[in-house]
Amino acid sequence: MNREALLQLLEEVRTGRVNPEEAAERVGLYPFAESGEGFCLDHQRELRRGFPEVVMAEGKTDRAVEEIVARMATSVPLFLVSRLKESLGRQLCESYAQAVYHPVARMLSFGEPPVGSEGIAIVSAGCADRAVALEAEVTLRWMGERAELIEDVGVAGLHRLMSRLPDLRRARVLIVVAGMEGALPSVIAGLVNVPVIAVPTSVGYGSSFQGLSALLGMLNSCSAGITVVNIDNGFGAAYAARLMVRTCDRGPAS
Amino acid sequence: MNREALLQLLEEVRTGRVNPEEAAERVGLYPFAESGEGFCLDHQRELRRGFPEVVMAEGKTDRAVEEIVARMATSVPLFLVSRLKESLGRQLCESYAQAVYHPVARMLSFGEPPVGSEGIAIVSAGCADRAVALEAEVTLRWMGERAELIEDVGVAGLHRLMSRLPDLRRARVLIVVAGMEGALPSVIAGLVNVPVIAVPTSVGYGSSFQGLSALLGMLNSCSAGITVVNIDNGFGAAYAARLMVRTCDRGPAS
Amino acid sequence: MNREALLQLLEEVRTGRVNPEEAAERVGLYPFAESGEGFCLDHQRELRRGFPEVVMAEGKTDRAVEEIVARMATSVPLFLVSRLKESLGRQLCESYAQAVYHPVARMLSFGEPPVGSEGIAIVSAGCADRAVALEAEVTLRWMGERAELIEDVGVAGLHRLMSRLPDLRRARVLIVVAGMEGALPSVIAGLVNVPVIAVPTSVGYGSSFQGLSALLGMLNSCSAGITVVNIDNGFGAAYAARLMVRTCDRGPAS
Amino acid sequence: MNREALLQLLEEVRTGRVNPEEAAERVGLYPFAESGEGFCLDHQRELRRGFPEVVMAEGKTDRAVEEIVARMATSVPLFLVSRLKESLGRQLCESYAQAVYHPVARMLSFGEPPVGSEGIAIVSAGCADRAVALEAEVTLRWMGERAELIEDVGVAGLHRLMSRLPDLRRARVLIVVAGMEGALPSVIAGLVNVPVIAVPTSVGYGSSFQGLSALLGMLNSCSAGITVVNIDNGFGAAYAARLMVRTCDRGPAS
Amino acid sequence: MNREALLQLLEEVRTGRVNPEEAAERVGLYPFAESGEGFCLDHQRELRRGFPEVVMAEGKTDRAVEEIVARMATSVPLFLVSRLKESLGRQLCESYAQAVYHPVARMLSFGEPPVGSEGIAIVSAGCADRAVALEAEVTLRWMGERAELIEDVGVAGLHRLMSRLPDLRRARVLIVVAGMEGALPSVIAGLVNVPVIAVPTSVGYGSSFQGLSALLGMLNSCSAGITVVNIDNGFGAAYAARLMVRTCDRGPAS
Amino acid sequence: MNREALLQLLEEVRTGRVNPEEAAERVGLYPFAESGEGFCLDHQRELRRGFPEVVMAEGKTDRAVEEIVARMATSVPLFLVSRLKESLGRQLCESYAQAVYHPVARMLSFGEPPVGSEGIAIVSAGCADRAVALEAEVTLRWMGERAELIEDVGVAGLHRLMSRLPDLRRARVLIVVAGMEGALPSVIAGLVNVPVIAVPTSVGYGSSFQGLSALLGMLNSCSAGITVVNIDNGFGAAYAARLMVRTCDRGPAS
Amino acid sequence: MNREALLQLLEEVRTGRVNPEEAAERVGLYPFAESGEGFCLDHQRELRRGFPEVVMAEGKTDRAVEEIVARMATSVPLFLVSRLKESLGRQLCESYAQAVYHPVARMLSFGEPPVGSEGIAIVSAGCADRAVALEAEVTLRWMGERAELIEDVGVAGLHRLMSRLPDLRRARVLIVVAGMEGALPSVIAGLVNVPVIAVPTSVGYGSSFQGLSALLGMLNSCSAGITVVNIDNGFGAAYAARLMVRTCDRGPAS
Amino acid sequence: MNREALLQLLEEVRTGRVNPEEAAERVGLYPFAESGEGFCLDHQRELRRGFPEVVMAEGKTDRAVEEIVARMATSVPLFLVSRLKESLGRQLCESYAQAVYHPVARMLSFGEPPVGSEGIAIVSAGCADRAVALEAEVTLRWMGERAELIEDVGVAGLHRLMSRLPDLRRARVLIVVAGMEGALPSVIAGLVNVPVIAVPTSVGYGSSFQGLSALLGMLNSCSAGITVVNIDNGFGAAYAARLMVRTCDRGPAS
Repeated sequence: MNREALLQLLEEVRTGRVNPEEAAERVGLYPFAESGEGFCLDHQRELRRGFPEVVMAEGKTDRAVEEIVARMATSVPLFLVSRLKESLGRQLCESYAQAVYHPVARMLSFGEPPVGSEGIAIVSAGCADRAVALEAEVTLRWMGERAELIEDVGVAGLHRLMSRLPDLRRARVLIVVAGMEGALPSVIAGLVNVPVIAVPTSVGYGSSFQGLSALLGMLNSCSAGITVVNIDNGFGAAYAARLMVRTCDRGPAS
Repeated sequence: MNREALLQLLEEVRTGRVNPEEAAERVGLYPFAESGEGFCLDHQRELRRGFPEVVMAEGKTDRAVEEIVARMATSVPLFLVSRLKESLGRQLCESYAQAVYHPVARMLSFGEPPVGSEGIAIVSAGCADRAVALEAEVTLRWMGERAELIEDVGVAGLHRLMSRLPDLRRARVLIVVAGMEGALPSVIAGLVNVPVIAVPTSVGYGSSFQGLSALLGMLNSCSAGITVVNIDNGFGAAYAARLMVRTCDRGPAS
Repeated sequence: MNREALLQLLEEVRTGRVNPEEAAERVGLYPFAESGEGFCLDHQRELRRGFPEVVMAEGKTDRAVEEIVARMATSVPLFLVSRLKESLGRQLCESYAQAVYHPVARMLSFGEPPVGSEGIAIVSAGCADRAVALEAEVTLRWMGERAELIEDVGVAGLHRLMSRLPDLRRARVLIVVAGMEGALPSVIAGLVNVPVIAVPTSVGYGSSFQGLSALLGMLNSCSAGITVVNIDNGFGAAYAARLMVRTCDRGPAS
Repeated sequence: MNREALLQLLEEVRTGRVNPEEAAERVGLYPFAESGEGFCLDHQRELRRGFPEVVMAEGKTDRAVEEIVARMATSVPLFLVSRLKESLGRQLCESYAQAVYHPVARMLSFGEPPVGSEGIAIVSAGCADRAVALEAEVTLRWMGERAELIEDVGVAGLHRLMSRLPDLRRARVLIVVAGMEGALPSVIAGLVNVPVIAVPTSVGYGSSFQGLSALLGMLNSCSAGITVVNIDNGFGAAYAARLMVRTCDRGPAS
Repeated sequence: MNREALLQLLEEVRTGRVNPEEAAERVGLYPFAESGEGFCLDHQRELRRGFPEVVMAEGKTDRAVEEIVARMATSVPLFLVSRLKESLGRQLCESYAQAVYHPVARMLSFGEPPVGSEGIAIVSAGCADRAVALEAEVTLRWMGERAELIEDVGVAGLHRLMSRLPDLRRARVLIVVAGMEGALPSVIAGLVNVPVIAVPTSVGYGSSFQGLSALLGMLNSCSAGITVVNIDNGFGAAYAARLMVRTCDRGPAS
Repeated sequence: MNREALLQLLEEVRTGRVNPEEAAERVGLYPFAESGEGFCLDHQRELRRGFPEVVMAEGKTDRAVEEIVARMATSVPLFLVSRLKESLGRQLCESYAQAVYHPVARMLSFGEPPVGSEGIAIVSAGCADRAVALEAEVTLRWMGERAELIEDVGVAGLHRLMSRLPDLRRARVLIVVAGMEGALPSVIAGLVNVPVIAVPTSVGYGSSFQGLSALLGMLNSCSAGITVVNIDNGFGAAYAARLMVRTCDRGPAS
Repeated sequence: MNREALLQLLEEVRTGRVNPEEAAERVGLYPFAESGEGFCLDHQRELRRGFPEVVMAEGKTDRAVEEIVARMATSVPLFLVSRLKESLGRQLCESYAQAVYHPVARMLSFGEPPVGSEGIAIVSAGCADRAVALEAEVTLRWMGERAELIEDVGVAGLHRLMSRLPDLRRARVLIVVAGMEGALPSVIAGLVNVPVIAVPTSVGYGSSFQGLSALLGMLNSCSAGITVVNIDNGFGAAYAARLMVRTCDRGPAS
Repeated sequence: MNREALLQLLEEVRTGRVNPEEAAERVGLYPFAESGEGFCLDHQRELRRGFPEVVMAEGKTDRAVEEIVARMATSVPLFLVSRLKESLGRQLCESYAQAVYHPVARMLSFGEPPVGSEGIAIVSAGCADRAVALEAEVTLRWMGERAELIEDVGVAGLHRLMSRLPDLRRARVLIVVAGMEGALPSVIAGLVNVPVIAVPTSVGYGSSFQGLSALLGMLNSCSAGITVVNIDNGFGAAYAARLMVRTCDRGPAS
């Protein structure tokens, strides 16, 4: 629920078209304990944090996801479901006209985002990191950002990266996605002077330990200016990147 | 490249035997291999990344640190030494008038930074996280930022945090420092809409495993908008925060 | 076998209606080694610990579970099977009229528990923690407690938790279930003055390492008054909570 | 600050003997940011949680500990410093007449606790677990509980434990302290029907990994009714035990 | 190939009935490199170690297992295949009359072992540890030992264990199998004065980490006289136990 | 750069509009971003490193693998796909006449390698290590080396290894593949004076932790002359071995 | 207290020279709770387990060790203190004439053991494993066994080991001590047919992780017949070895 | 003992100047068990492996090191002691004229190596990796190789590395030393076509976990041609590098 919707609702309360109990529920103060699936939508999140809630499907039963989507579809114009398996994603697309399923990113987006600004680039080390890079890309698009995608430029073939240096330097924030040894953020952060958000991926085998090697590599980077998110967390990187470019909208710091 | 070699090179530029482009490359390219201590100062870093190099003293011999400082003191107006033990820090202060040692942060700063802008707040969970919070604070001051310090507001006493909410909301970027379970960034990120840089600390005992518990907690936060740096890496958090507030200086994104 | 049943059995031995061998087996001193499935029911547990045995199905073959249930169904009026897969649970319900299968909690309960007292609340951080929260809830109900369920109030949206504070403060013991960074018990324990039993869950991905991040977070909580059980161990938390509220029935300590 | 002290202070404000600014500081709403050591005493904790704050000395500088103690000594009648090294503890005892240092438990207690009730027993597996057992014992005494200490009854010599069974069964809550394989809580919990708080210790060597083996053993106990605290956390176990026996003071649950 | 068979073969070489090349292959000096599946049977093992080779099926392709069995079936009167999935085990039983598949132990045995001596007992903590206990039992039977099986006597119900104490004390070597916290060997070793071989199992969930908790518990036992084998390694425990009781057959030590 | 773009560029070189240096850079610099699957073939790799790129199929979608193979099949005479599942491998063999699928090694090779030199031996500890040994063998054959395969000579039966000592000593570089405790490289390196490349495998169970035990064993070898690659990385070992025997082709070192 | 001493004491009780209370204390039924240092000597251990208690000094305060030794010196003719630092060991030797301190093994032995039998050999991989090998050797001597010491025969130089093969084969039980990759037990167990007790040591650096690499290597040995004790646990290995050779004294198994 | 010395000794045996017992000892077939410090010099190593033994001082007592050095000084013309603390190194230099102590590398070398060939370069990422780089350099010099040292060229300042590319490409084998994220080998291996031996160092803090991050990074490199040694193992890297350049001396492979 955004500000306009809230004002309109309150106006309807004032004029008696909506009674306070119903309004309270729609505003989202009270959890949907009665839903029978144990969730509690946070309708006020957009007001508080700037973006509506994102639902992580993984770990929830199908029925819980369906019920949450049904609730949100009637009250939130723009939302996102992440880590959603393809079969359920396809099924929900059939039920909701405004839903789009992104199979590689494994996300379901609802609603038409505003025309996006630019300033964020997503860089990936290898083709196998693609799902995570696209999770970031879909998230940003849904938040009104248009990110440039620079893929498969890992450090094993440095010339591929070097040929994209002008693109890297044009961005205001960089999301760098890499598995295996996770060295790409270190190299890139040494070449630019903007924040680098490093996303380790679970790409690799053996002693990569499902992304641990990339995660540790990024946390211990010898280049300054890097911050790190969880393994495979393309969504989190995108969300943070969006906040970073937004800091400027707040006017000059005193 | 030592001073004589530099002077000779510049003389050759003056007399036209070497053109400026070639000279510039040679100035920044060859390491001080002749120093006998195996380091290679990166004089071009300021041009490339926006700030001069920071030297991490830990892991280097005293003699190496002394020699590096001697080199930098004659060529770099503003630099920083981190993770420097007190005895050596005090000794270097006696040798260099422009040096200041910060005992809790364990840093040595050289030179007078410009008057700082504001916009960054450093929040710490407990009194024992102070060294890391101050490492961030000293770094920011040296980079021309004046950070607000909000200390000892951990989640065990939520009212302490709540009473500082207006201060938190005034910042454009938040650095949140916490050890033990590292829950503070999760709580704060749910209350603001700016980037939160989480710094896990090694504060704790037993199964905190020298900061692992806080690190994992922060990486797995259920709040979006958080990025994480290495355990006890106050410097890295400050550096990244500075880059984030600087993105605005680059003009509006297209 | 409870006290009355034991007395009645011994009376039957005295009067010769039951011979000692049969009685001994029913009392449960000797293991059912002859069962061919290698288990040894602990029929005396209720006398000793206050509650009959609970059977964990996971790791046992289907045939072993069936045989154990068959044994208990004829000798124990009230028992519980945990971590039981749905197919076998449904099948056992068809064989035993007194059995009820709880699909989200993955438990099978036998028998009608006494009308429950109140005093325990189960709090969960997110919808995906539901299975563990319900495992605790089913266990408590079966032990004669009626627990209040407060779901999806994780720290990312603190206002959801705050709106339930009166409910939290009414309880005598709190079970707090959370995955990911596991921060919820820390926040709650700072707001109440009753024991908090923290249950880490395997909800999360990447560096949550199947619940390790939540477990470490809870063990290292900066709030006092928290004790922790194994990852996903809703049953254990419920059992311990029941013991805690029962300490009062023992009369004032000397 | 307890309730009476608060009322008295407010009366003094009303009558003008104390001005509001001074009162506010004493009430503890505002952190002592001006202290120069970065701490923020939580004077309201007693009102909120039932006991005043406990200060963990480990990780804090000597100067910070001294300053915190100085503040608390003038405003809190009863408090505790934990994990305090002997030299500083002895020194503080010389400065404050009401301070007592407990060298094995490594704690400093201030003030005369009320005469204690009974109902908690502390059991330790071996002589080397003594420091942790005494940390629990000092904490409980300071909270107005008188705990029975049953030491060196580890599972390697079961008859030692068995000879103390009547003592174990008399308690309403048991704190069980063990290092190495941490098996003692499992054995005890199978013999009693009260809550068992298991405290793993770092006693051991090699693959005990500083208490990890005991911690994992306790978390995976096959006996129900056990909850666990951090490695070597005798304080936390005592605090939780005190809350458990206090649940009875709240009257019968509805 | 045992000693008699070897002597007979060499006699046949001497008399010309077998040519040296064929004999060499049967003796097993040269690996079956030509088999196309890359294995190298160790036909001399019985001479050297006292028992023929045991083949671990896990990690080998079905075709490799089939070929190895085919080779051994023609040259080795008595052998064992471990960790063999049921489908392949059943199929091999149909091909070889002398093969028996043990479904819970997941082993395939070939040949009729000699009548066994006694002196080893296998003790298990819970019903879910059965597969590992039976792996040990099948191995021992195949090696000519008749082991007593004492199941489901875990420490949570100490009276079950105590009632079997005479059986435990009759054995010359004890194999103790336990998952979860793995406390059973500690308790038993304190009650007997014979060697205890502890076998951790992967029974458990959450922080049992697939048997790590039991393994660490056993390695850090406070009782002396315990040695440990790999997680779920019932075969290894049986093999070692057999060697231990055999030391006596070597006559009195000098 | 696709075929048309390449032809157009070469035309521009021919007509003098683009000079050769610029063209060379453009040929190798721009990724196939237009492919829609996010990869970036490194056509210059053969020039730079001596061998064309190898594609790791694991972690890539089927569609991405198909598209990459299609691209390479038209432009690279000799390439390799590793960690490719059998179904996709078989399917690609039907589409491309020059493709061969190696089912145990799980590799797809394209093109006829030159007649190979000799000098590398691949030694494996057990039959279950075969897949990794063959991955190395296929890689070497494809790089123009003919490796000798010495299988199933693990340290449990030292005589098997000893009988192959002459073969081991004939090699110029040894690749030693072992799972479980990974002791074979230590023993072999003590017997030869050539480089030993140790390849830990994930063969084992329980505390082998998917190859961690073998990896640690090899890294901590008490024999000098061993270097290690990732768990199950037969390809990497072969690649490095090929570089080692090639160092000689560079002529005598100065 | 051994059997004779017990009989003599009981005779004294019968004749009234010793009153029951004093006798009870000396028999050791009741713990020395009054000692003020929290230990509980197990005077009955020799009767129950065959050997008197061994005291591990590590983790105990100096004062506790002194008091325990004082108690035992007056009541136990033969005992051992392990992991005792040199300064305290030397000091105790001055106080007690019957005490001997073994500086490399870090043990203090009291009393004259009986003339030992033979049958156990202790093998070590390297000179740095000596402390652990000697801890085993001192323990065995004190238990009445005379062990042969075969040192510095690690697998890097196999001929050293081979030249000692006859000595290895003469033993009835082998204790094999090794750090780093811990490969020695695997090689030896393949060459003998007696039980091998493997003792991992913390010798090594880097990824040996204080003995973890050796421990995992031994647990995952491809040779059967190996059982493992804790890292650096020479005492435990010796104790178990003694039990193994003693199984023969129990007469033939039925 | 090298070949000439052996021949000379045998000649002396033939002519009766040396008796066989003395010769045997000097040849080194029998271990110096009588030395009282438990070591067993491997005098035949040079004949077998090409270089004499290297003694690792760490983990050995001072007295053991002294005695080993005394033995070797009289029988081996050229040897090396690694990981030797400065005080003992300096003291040994005073006793032996031919000894040289290298304080940063922490090594003691004996004897004058032959004039070295070239072909190996040692590259380090940072100044703090110097000790490990020098350990490799001293080892190589002692083995008759003259290595080029290229220091402080980590990936954070890629231009430093790029300016040394011609030096890197001149080498036949590269040793690359790096701590923290360990990314340097990945970048270098992508630029050259010779073997890269990666040496992780323990340089770093927090989640570098004493070199684990660098180790995992190197094992998971996306560049082929890299093999890895233990953390901080400069010696092992040098030894392996020497074997690699020596493969050429063996003549062309057949």
